[in-house]
Amino acid sequence: MKVVIIGTGNVATILGRKILESPHDLVQIAGRTPMHAQKLGHRLNVPFTSPASTISKNADLYIVAISDDALTSVGEWLFLDKKLVVHTAGSVSMNVLESVSKNYGVLYPLQSLNAESVELPEVPFLVDGSSPDDLALINDFASSISSSVQVSTDEARKKLHLAAVIVNNFTNHLYVLAGNYCKQEQLDFNLLLPLIKETANRISYLTATDAQTGPAARNDTTTIKKHLELLKDHPALKKIYEEMTRSITEANSQRSVVRSGS
Amino acid sequence: MKVVIIGTGNVATILGRKILESPHDLVQIAGRTPMHAQKLGHRLNVPFTSPASTISKNADLYIVAISDDALTSVGEWLFLDKKLVVHTAGSVSMNVLESVSKNYGVLYPLQSLNAESVELPEVPFLVDGSSPDDLALINDFASSISSSVQVSTDEARKKLHLAAVIVNNFTNHLYVLAGNYCKQEQLDFNLLLPLIKETANRISYLTATDAQTGPAARNDTTTIKKHLELLKDHPALKKIYEEMTRSITEANSQRSVVRSGS
Repeated sequence: MKVVIIGTGNVATILGRKILESPHDLVQIAGRTPMHAQKLGHRLNVPFTSPASTISKNADLYIVAISDDALTSVGEWLFLDKKLVVHTAGSVSMNVLESVSKNYGVLYPLQSLNAESVELPEVPFLVDGSSPDDLALINDFASSISSSVQVSTDEARKKLHLAAVIVNNFTNHLYVLAGNYCKQEQLDFNLLLPLIKETANRISYLTATDAQTGPAARNDTTTIKKHLELLKDHPALKKIYEEMTRSITEANSQRSVVRSGS
Repeated sequence: MKVVIIGTGNVATILGRKILESPHDLVQIAGRTPMHAQKLGHRLNVPFTSPASTISKNADLYIVAISDDALTSVGEWLFLDKKLVVHTAGSVSMNVLESVSKNYGVLYPLQSLNAESVELPEVPFLVDGSSPDDLALINDFASSISSSVQVSTDEARKKLHLAAVIVNNFTNHLYVLAGNYCKQEQLDFNLLLPLIKETANRISYLTATDAQTGPAARNDTTTIKKHLELLKDHPALKKIYEEMTRSITEANSQRSVVRSGS
């Protein structure tokens, strides 16, 4: 397929790199800001353009990888007639593209994409299409650049995006809080990196519920009290500590109830 | 060094496996429950014993890898005279061993250890000793089974243990919550595994603060509202969502203040 990417951010860059490694032909990069379009065009060694009116008419697939906000008004400046066009957003309805083309759909990468990643990460895709034919084309395309593709409605995609926020953004915020605490207490945060990796890897072979350990999971109130004492000068972290400890205790007590009832 | 391990749980098992791969000599496993001692002895192909009175007197290092609770009363049943003895607990003072031997210290693995792990994980050690000579011996031993060893006081070790709870237990609980949500909404949690791995790997080359993305970090109230609406039938998760979103917003606004003030 001949592909045009509209957008110049992290998603556009990583999809561009994936396409360059595939049998498909990346024919153009289009971006609102001329300098950004030029930069990504140079980086991927692909022709680039800026005004929407100069976007190539000869491609088979147009990937709109722009922010949710910009996507909301895409119908005002992009018209592709019958060309197949997809967006890449987790939380935006497929129908936002219905005034752009007769044939449209979604190609949502369920991954945190960073333009500068040295190695391309594994990217599961959730796909959708405005007709069975469009969906089949999008599904085939996604399968040619990823080994993990699932058809997903707007509703299911939005829910998976929410789950992604929990395991990615919230988890990363815990790293931020632990990092700030280490800095304030003059401890070496890097000592925690092997533990962080092990925690993420473990749920490939244990369920998260079975992998749950720690003071809250074993109801070790002595250690929890010591920790809250250590956190008395860290009110923001203390609040999260209390909230997570409460939630773990609650989850475990529900689990016990289910067990003793079964 | 000739080493005796006292304990039969996850820490005892992984340290035993590490020692078998090292130049040291694991001479005995001792455990309170005869069946557990036998099981680990057989697994590691090492002599085992159960009553404390039958623990070998001929080793150079005794590693007490038992629960925090059991450790508190270790002085009541273990006496090793002048033999070098260490415990492996993050939150227990080194001095809990002072009635066990004249020479004691700490060998704390800052890692989540699971006896069944196929591959031995990278394990940073925090070490301490009751005298400079003891500390040097413990430090040398730790360095012979790990490439990451730091000397750490009781106080610093307890604080790092708290940071470990945050990045390990709390992170894993977010996986549990996201997993329960996926189950209830009939979504495939396994689709999130590549994202979970990427999130953990990314902070090896980006600071967690720079890696922070998502609706809360960009103050995207539209998406946050959509998510809270999706969570209306998931009160426990909704509470965590609100708390984490509040905390991320707070951390980011403090960051902006620092930036505009600098």
